[in-house]
Amino acid sequence: MKSFLNPGSVVLIGVTRHGGVGAYNNLEVMLNFGVASDIYVVHPHVKNILGYPAYTNIMDVPIIPELAIISVGRNNIISIFNACAEKGIKRVIIVSQGFSDADEKGTRIQNKLIKIAKENSIRIMGPNTLGVLNNFDGFTTSFVTIPKEPSPVPLGAIVQSGVFLADGQSFTNGLGKAIDIGNGSDIDFVDGLNYFETDPDIEIIAIYMEEIKRGRVFLKPASRISRKKPIIVLKSGRSEAGGKAALSHTGSLVGEDAVYDIALEKAGLVRAKNMIELKSISNLFLHCSPMKGQRLAVVTATGAAGILAADACDDYGLHLASIKDDTLKNLEVSAVKWFNLNNPADIWPLGMVTGNVSNIVVKVSVSLIENDQVDGLLIVFPAFASSLHDDINFQSIINRILKKTRQEKPIAVWLYGKGAEQQKKSMLRQKGFAFFENIDEAVMGLAGSWRYFRNQQQKKDFEDVEPSKKINPSVIPSNGIYLGKDAFELMRRYNLPVVSGKIINSRDQAMNTADRIGYPVVLKVISRHWLHKSDEGGVVVGIRNPRGLKDAYNNLVALFHKKFPEKRLPELLLQRQVVGKELIFGIKREPRMGHVILAGMGGIYTEIFNDTARELAPVTKKEAEKMLRSLKYYPVLKGIRGEASVDIQSLIDIITSLSELAMDYPEISEVDLNPVIINQEGCWCVDSRIIF
Amino acid sequence: MKSFLNPGSVVLIGVTRHGGVGAYNNLEVMLNFGVASDIYVVHPHVKNILGYPAYTNIMDVPIIPELAIISVGRNNIISIFNACAEKGIKRVIIVSQGFSDADEKGTRIQNKLIKIAKENSIRIMGPNTLGVLNNFDGFTTSFVTIPKEPSPVPLGAIVQSGVFLADGQSFTNGLGKAIDIGNGSDIDFVDGLNYFETDPDIEIIAIYMEEIKRGRVFLKPASRISRKKPIIVLKSGRSEAGGKAALSHTGSLVGEDAVYDIALEKAGLVRAKNMIELKSISNLFLHCSPMKGQRLAVVTATGAAGILAADACDDYGLHLASIKDDTLKNLEVSAVKWFNLNNPADIWPLGMVTGNVSNIVVKVSVSLIENDQVDGLLIVFPAFASSLHDDINFQSIINRILKKTRQEKPIAVWLYGKGAEQQKKSMLRQKGFAFFENIDEAVMGLAGSWRYFRNQQQKKDFEDVEPSKKINPSVIPSNGIYLGKDAFELMRRYNLPVVSGKIINSRDQAMNTADRIGYPVVLKVISRHWLHKSDEGGVVVGIRNPRGLKDAYNNLVALFHKKFPEKRLPELLLQRQVVGKELIFGIKREPRMGHVILAGMGGIYTEIFNDTARELAPVTKKEAEKMLRSLKYYPVLKGIRGEASVDIQSLIDIITSLSELAMDYPEISEVDLNPVIINQEGCWCVDSRIIF
Repeated sequence: MKSFLNPGSVVLIGVTRHGGVGAYNNLEVMLNFGVASDIYVVHPHVKNILGYPAYTNIMDVPIIPELAIISVGRNNIISIFNACAEKGIKRVIIVSQGFSDADEKGTRIQNKLIKIAKENSIRIMGPNTLGVLNNFDGFTTSFVTIPKEPSPVPLGAIVQSGVFLADGQSFTNGLGKAIDIGNGSDIDFVDGLNYFETDPDIEIIAIYMEEIKRGRVFLKPASRISRKKPIIVLKSGRSEAGGKAALSHTGSLVGEDAVYDIALEKAGLVRAKNMIELKSISNLFLHCSPMKGQRLAVVTATGAAGILAADACDDYGLHLASIKDDTLKNLEVSAVKWFNLNNPADIWPLGMVTGNVSNIVVKVSVSLIENDQVDGLLIVFPAFASSLHDDINFQSIINRILKKTRQEKPIAVWLYGKGAEQQKKSMLRQKGFAFFENIDEAVMGLAGSWRYFRNQQQKKDFEDVEPSKKINPSVIPSNGIYLGKDAFELMRRYNLPVVSGKIINSRDQAMNTADRIGYPVVLKVISRHWLHKSDEGGVVVGIRNPRGLKDAYNNLVALFHKKFPEKRLPELLLQRQVVGKELIFGIKREPRMGHVILAGMGGIYTEIFNDTARELAPVTKKEAEKMLRSLKYYPVLKGIRGEASVDIQSLIDIITSLSELAMDYPEISEVDLNPVIINQEGCWCVDSRIIF
Repeated sequence: MKSFLNPGSVVLIGVTRHGGVGAYNNLEVMLNFGVASDIYVVHPHVKNILGYPAYTNIMDVPIIPELAIISVGRNNIISIFNACAEKGIKRVIIVSQGFSDADEKGTRIQNKLIKIAKENSIRIMGPNTLGVLNNFDGFTTSFVTIPKEPSPVPLGAIVQSGVFLADGQSFTNGLGKAIDIGNGSDIDFVDGLNYFETDPDIEIIAIYMEEIKRGRVFLKPASRISRKKPIIVLKSGRSEAGGKAALSHTGSLVGEDAVYDIALEKAGLVRAKNMIELKSISNLFLHCSPMKGQRLAVVTATGAAGILAADACDDYGLHLASIKDDTLKNLEVSAVKWFNLNNPADIWPLGMVTGNVSNIVVKVSVSLIENDQVDGLLIVFPAFASSLHDDINFQSIINRILKKTRQEKPIAVWLYGKGAEQQKKSMLRQKGFAFFENIDEAVMGLAGSWRYFRNQQQKKDFEDVEPSKKINPSVIPSNGIYLGKDAFELMRRYNLPVVSGKIINSRDQAMNTADRIGYPVVLKVISRHWLHKSDEGGVVVGIRNPRGLKDAYNNLVALFHKKFPEKRLPELLLQRQVVGKELIFGIKREPRMGHVILAGMGGIYTEIFNDTARELAPVTKKEAEKMLRSLKYYPVLKGIRGEASVDIQSLIDIITSLSELAMDYPEISEVDLNPVIINQEGCWCVDSRIIF
């Protein structure tokens, strides 16, 4: 990767022959940026571009450049790329658009490039990329001007769009280095992460992700690297990511975006919802350590800011610290009898009466941030554009605060008023506190840092999750769908509870079986042609006696023949009828991230309330319990209105058994245990489908 | 109000004797602001403050000042205020803190001030206020410096905190005039609104509200004025506003904050969730007309911005316009065969190939904004800090767009990159488009303008909602709680459906009644001492025969006596048992805004899923239907899995009947019809309580 970000020599191919307005000439931009690499230019028609001799052919370049930057149209790209390969160039950035970002022809060309690259051990960045930006070593391949940062921040970005390079300030509060993977045909997030892992310039990593090809592979280095360097991910496309067309309830309940949520969390990363949050969290990490809990203290010169901060805490997942000792009481002054200091601490009245606002802010801030009941501090303080207010200079206030504290907890500051910009300028690079543009961004930043800390505490070990590949190809039915007996058989092998029942092939067999297992019973059609049978009369419940069973049998057979005249009579399943609370459990294989285990409220409310919990396999018992606890339905399971609790342990076992099943059979695409009926006596899966 | 905001003469009482650093002297600030009023100063000890002669006593001031500004401590305030009254001053701003904002003593003093004011026809602003800011006429009473805006924006703010005056930019994107009502002891939101209604300087009104005393009174002028001047409300304290301790399910389900939500919406205002949204919506209205639908088109120079905009639409309540005609197709150029123009329209490839990005942006923007399928436009465009990119000057682009369009729809712009601030400066006051700091704020602003438009379309007429006061005091029981027979009687008068049942006083009566209405039956204790009876065994359901009824009767009586040994035997209610879907309906009187009608999913899931809809009384049939439609449970009512729909009309009738009940009896504090059981045959209220 160093060859991409800081090459000793570089050759530009397809660069515009002229510079100036509207040329979007990446050589010109590179020179303006102050590049240190040796530069070579290839152009078929001109002799000289911006003072550099232009070689007609790549083969004429006197050395083997460390990096090639190609900006030619897609129709010429293969021959140029072959020439680069022949020359022995090992690193290529393809700037041009019109590949997998465009149409099928473009995708074919891109695949061909990858093939040539593999054969020649070449690594490609792009196509469809601005390439790289390196403010530390002074190198960029951008064709739009990006001013060089004189003192870059230690943040490295791996992104899928040049806009993040063009306005690092708006997205990540500044940029040290950035890699635009473009279409990600070869160099991707994993390569970027591995590079930044050991890059001494970089302490924080930001990712902008539209899609990820090697999702599960990404989680391993991400989980390792995030321990040392916080990784903040803006994953876009949330709005499209509802459950796609699926063959099972589980399939439709596990939306793609929800899987990204779990996966990123479990790798110990922190996800930003939008660009405001990405900027806020980046900003926090650029200046402060993360919050190690959710308890925020607020020092403010105005009551309203305190209330707005409380609302923001509620929105972004923090809460106001409740200070149970005398910390605040001890700071009050007897001169203002009517005044009580709380959290949020509105210090203005005390400041006015004592005649020294600054002293009060320092005192209260130090007390709060050093208090064991507080994990972070928000200071909302005015900076007026008038020398009349020189008594409340924030620079001196914050320096006094930092001096008196251990600087282990983050301090977010909203400095407001017309003088704020001026005052902030000289303090922007100081550590120990971070300025924000408003209360919400401050709380977003703090809350993001807390989520990072929390995710680090509860993260999965992605070292050992390679599929165990025990698969025996003979167990998979030809059409890939397991129902009824087949499904139940597989389930029993994993100790998944199956309701007593029997596949029957005749009416007499049905009557005998029912006598044995006892009424009431349920009779249902099992056919892979009829997956939504329960919605269409294919299940008869509440059969109380032999007469009812006879009727049910006859009706079901007739209904099936009417519906599928061309099919032969399917299997019928006779089960003991169990009554109780209904749950759904399931597995879904998400193409990027692997198997997801689902647990949720079942029955008719499944889709209406979508009260479900999801976890990436493998799922531990502890995680399984957490899934169940997170359901709104959980209190019902534990028993409301005087009822006894159901056997939660048996539900935990279902989840972990499903997880084992998923890990053993990577080919499983969806599993539905729906419903699983649970009552005081136990739990039973009444219907299931397993789709390979 | 003019006397507060632009007085001909003003007297300052309690002003600090010296000016300078740390003095917080409001005379000094007023002079710096460039005041035009005649100024008088009262001080007991000094002869001169900042060049103004100081009168020892207010009576010595040679004229009757139009406005007095009092900054003395609370212990001296009554005598000073009396002196103002005696002098004949009719408008007073009380800056000092320590009144109802502090403790009981402060509240008593404040009440006394109000009493004196009423007796002398004096209006008070405050206490606990910075007073006013008037950038148009050049007047402020603030004791902290607020630089005067040379060309103020037409936005008037009515707020409960000085911070909004101190940093108008951060909260409302600039300020024309502002009124800080402080504790709101007299002058409040209603006065502010009425003033801004006819103020020719003000076109947009922003409100920061912590609490409102005259809520229902406020809605009338708010609803009238918002038609002409959009009113944006930041109502804080969302996080504390969960359902307070309540005697009914309805009480706990209708949180205070939800009531503000409905009330503000129904008055045609637009609520901002936080300060970012307040600023974004203010900004939109300062430059553009509102969106008249939810369909947003996006023109962008980068694909990522389009995806982020789609996510933002999803978050804030807009959606991407789907352009069904050939508008976009017609704009493509044959030079780039692989390129398709969609919404979001990523114009960069077209711009690069045609060599004229500006032309493409103008063309595509004009086509989209003029398209009938589009309600608003977001432009995301780069501004690079380099003369290399002079071909994409946004000033000329936007002027060309505006010239070619009717300017009836809003255009939000995020201009990004290092050159953006510089380019924006000269365009900040232009109309027809608004700059935002990022994609999310742009979409927030657009979405807020759409909510304003929608709320205006569906707003209530608050002219005729005065309670009809038909109350007959004799109908209210002494302890205020109606249960059982009493409640059912009142309900029948309002055609609310009550299940067949009878209050019984003996076991024999129970047996006879059950024989008449038919088994199965339900038996329950009716006692105002035992409101949560169903959770504690006070209801027996599913009684199938006389023997079961006898047992149930005996058990209930025994249980009640055990639980309340000192109480005499309560009434028992015997009802026919009905089975079906369970709903809850109710009324809650919210102290500020009046009666709220609730409809929701009932039974054990009521509190778990909180699937409820709320509306301010009076509720029309149309609104009632909308309430039901908004429930997640609605599809179940309409029939899922082949079931027939329940009688929706009968549910609408319940809601409108409850609304009538609420309007007739302003004394009603809470009503619960819980559950109302509904099946194919009809609906029945099975249990109810009415609390006065």
